Amino acid sequence: MTRSEPSYEALTETTAIALAKTLELFSADADLICHEIGDGNLNMVFRITEPAAKRGIIIKQALPYVRVIGEGWPLTLNRAVIESEALRHFAKHVPQYVPEIYYTDPTYAITVMEDLSHLTIVRTGLASGSTYPLLSTHIGEFLAKTLFATSDFAMGPQEKRELALQFHNPELCKITENFVFTYPLFDHETNDVEPILRPIAEQIWGDQSLLLEAAKLKQTFITHAEALLHGDLHTGSIFASDEETKVIDPEFAFYGPIGFDIGLFIANTLLSALAREEDGRDALLFHITNVWDVFVDTFSTLWQQNNVEDFASIEGYLEYQLQHIFEDAVGFAGSEIIRRIFGLAHARDIEAIIEDAHRLTVKRNAAALGRDFIVNRSLYQSPAQLVQALQQVVTGASIVHPSL
Amino acid sequence: MTRSEPSYEALTETTAIALAKTLELFSADADLICHEIGDGNLNMVFRITEPAAKRGIIIKQALPYVRVIGEGWPLTLNRAVIESEALRHFAKHVPQYVPEIYYTDPTYAITVMEDLSHLTIVRTGLASGSTYPLLSTHIGEFLAKTLFATSDFAMGPQEKRELALQFHNPELCKITENFVFTYPLFDHETNDVEPILRPIAEQIWGDQSLLLEAAKLKQTFITHAEALLHGDLHTGSIFASDEETKVIDPEFAFYGPIGFDIGLFIANTLLSALAREEDGRDALLFHITNVWDVFVDTFSTLWQQNNVEDFASIEGYLEYQLQHIFEDAVGFAGSEIIRRIFGLAHARDIEAIIEDAHRLTVKRNAAALGRDFIVNRSLYQSPAQLVQALQQVVTGASIVHPSL
Repeated sequence: MTRSEPSYEALTETTAIALAKTLELFSADADLICHEIGDGNLNMVFRITEPAAKRGIIIKQALPYVRVIGEGWPLTLNRAVIESEALRHFAKHVPQYVPEIYYTDPTYAITVMEDLSHLTIVRTGLASGSTYPLLSTHIGEFLAKTLFATSDFAMGPQEKRELALQFHNPELCKITENFVFTYPLFDHETNDVEPILRPIAEQIWGDQSLLLEAAKLKQTFITHAEALLHGDLHTGSIFASDEETKVIDPEFAFYGPIGFDIGLFIANTLLSALAREEDGRDALLFHITNVWDVFVDTFSTLWQQNNVEDFASIEGYLEYQLQHIFEDAVGFAGSEIIRRIFGLAHARDIEAIIEDAHRLTVKRNAAALGRDFIVNRSLYQSPAQLVQALQQVVTGASIVHPSL
Repeated sequence: MTRSEPSYEALTETTAIALAKTLELFSADADLICHEIGDGNLNMVFRITEPAAKRGIIIKQALPYVRVIGEGWPLTLNRAVIESEALRHFAKHVPQYVPEIYYTDPTYAITVMEDLSHLTIVRTGLASGSTYPLLSTHIGEFLAKTLFATSDFAMGPQEKRELALQFHNPELCKITENFVFTYPLFDHETNDVEPILRPIAEQIWGDQSLLLEAAKLKQTFITHAEALLHGDLHTGSIFASDEETKVIDPEFAFYGPIGFDIGLFIANTLLSALAREEDGRDALLFHITNVWDVFVDTFSTLWQQNNVEDFASIEGYLEYQLQHIFEDAVGFAGSEIIRRIFGLAHARDIEAIIEDAHRLTVKRNAAALGRDFIVNRSLYQSPAQLVQALQQVVTGASIVHPSL
């Protein structure tokens, strides 16, 4: 009798508990509770707790298809490996900002990790009034340290090219290429446009100067292999409290342009700010300026201390890098904003605004900002100008660029 | 008794003949002549001919070290696989411009291919007065067809990322990163500077605006994975006659910026033109403008016919691509010129100028052009302006850009 190779099988709450015990993460006779808590489209997430000991773990299992579309759209299980490896890699540089990984099984696409349920998902928290005062300081440091460490400037090109091989992730990249960079810019069947906003969507789809700049940003995303990105760093990929911040879900990790992660964080924070009444907005606008300021400080220090590039000390080269990263980040923020208003996956805090007129105003304002970030990204010299543009838009003014 | 795995062993003229017979490329009783004809630093090249039948083949074997430096500097044998695979890939699109591959052995790093000895190496031919009237038409078509076919625009990003994996070539890229993009810009021990030109070299090494732009070009080379490049397309990598053109030696092939191959061809053609007396120059300057014109025509036709990118038909997008490719090509041409004057591997046609004053003038002019191509690459809008800059430099004038 031959034993067949193990093959993929979806976990249930019962088999998830069995796995946790096999891994000796709990004692054999512990009373465990298991709930499937996933709200993503791509994975199942089991939380297993031992109430008596007030301890818990998370078991995440990738599904072999995109759940929101049913079993019709297969998706590589290798993304579970990418996610675990990215988290382990980030942990080398910023262990304080990622969950600890206990176990990975590539065949079953399973990752067992630290339970973060003492924290909340930032998108949800921001929608309910939390401000997470340390959020942007932590994320700015996370971004600078992970992105610098995996760039040519810290590793040298040869070592970087080797690491990039491990994060070959074309299927997940394709999702971003389509759902962030392409479909929202065209009248595509996967878009989700509120009927009353259709004229604005149609303006976008016919705006040749916007489409040209959007095309360039898409090419930058596809071709510029600068550093190991998280790849999906919206506020739904961050757990936080007032003291603590943890980045999760880097299954989209790949070698891409440094500005992309920064742009996604800025865009989603800005959308949460737009969804708020004016008096709650400043704490979030602070995060937009502060994440960049902390990124610049940390990245610049690393640049001066740990740079292996012979040209590193050339006058103006660090400034050029920061300027080009910021320009990319502004453009990518614009792409992200547009797709969160017109694409498939919307920003929940904006969708949660019940009053139609208010929600539509927020969406119109977001669309105006998104367009300007894409088209005029080279005119933005600092995050204060992003905030200024937001202030102009919400007061009904046109966006004016100082350098014009 | 166990048989050991075959392992690498360098061919001799005798074993090369034995291999040719084993492969049945000649009849078993054929009288064959074999000569090692390699003049590169990285490989042995055996030409095996059957004089009675007027037939021949080439057997190329990669050495496990860089020959010019002895056995001290090991170099991956996988480059033989890269070279064969690149030639096979190019043959899908332009079989008329590459030698036919008969056999590849990865263990011995051997490639057996078509004998091109009815053609001459273009660098040598140009130095002795040949003009190869079809050279730039063929190379322009070669470049457009191979580069477009392997870009995101023809393949889509996912398929492109898969193909790029096969051309993971970090060790050979490192040679270019160092010997083209870094060492010649610093006072590095591997440089080869004629003593009388040292003041000019020192000007370059201290020219902060040049170094900053050179740094950006290096980063573009390292990070912009746009298409499968030949990677070393100087005039020593091209065989030609008046009717025929064959591109050889793509062991540096990798996914990089489209402008690189174009820039190397332009730079080396321009150096040959500079090495000539004025009355022999026009035929070579024609190649500089014509290679770009043919590239643009062919690339544009392919863009319109075979583009899978949704943004392809956006107004201005093709023009943007061509403009950005040209700007990169001009900058890379500048990097190549500088390294051929001050780096390790010089342009033989210039070194062959016996009269000191003339040779030094040619080198000074080349250095001035190289610097301007790097620093002012965005000001060059057409290859005619490159030729114009050359004319200005050789008449002792300053380079003037029309847009200034």
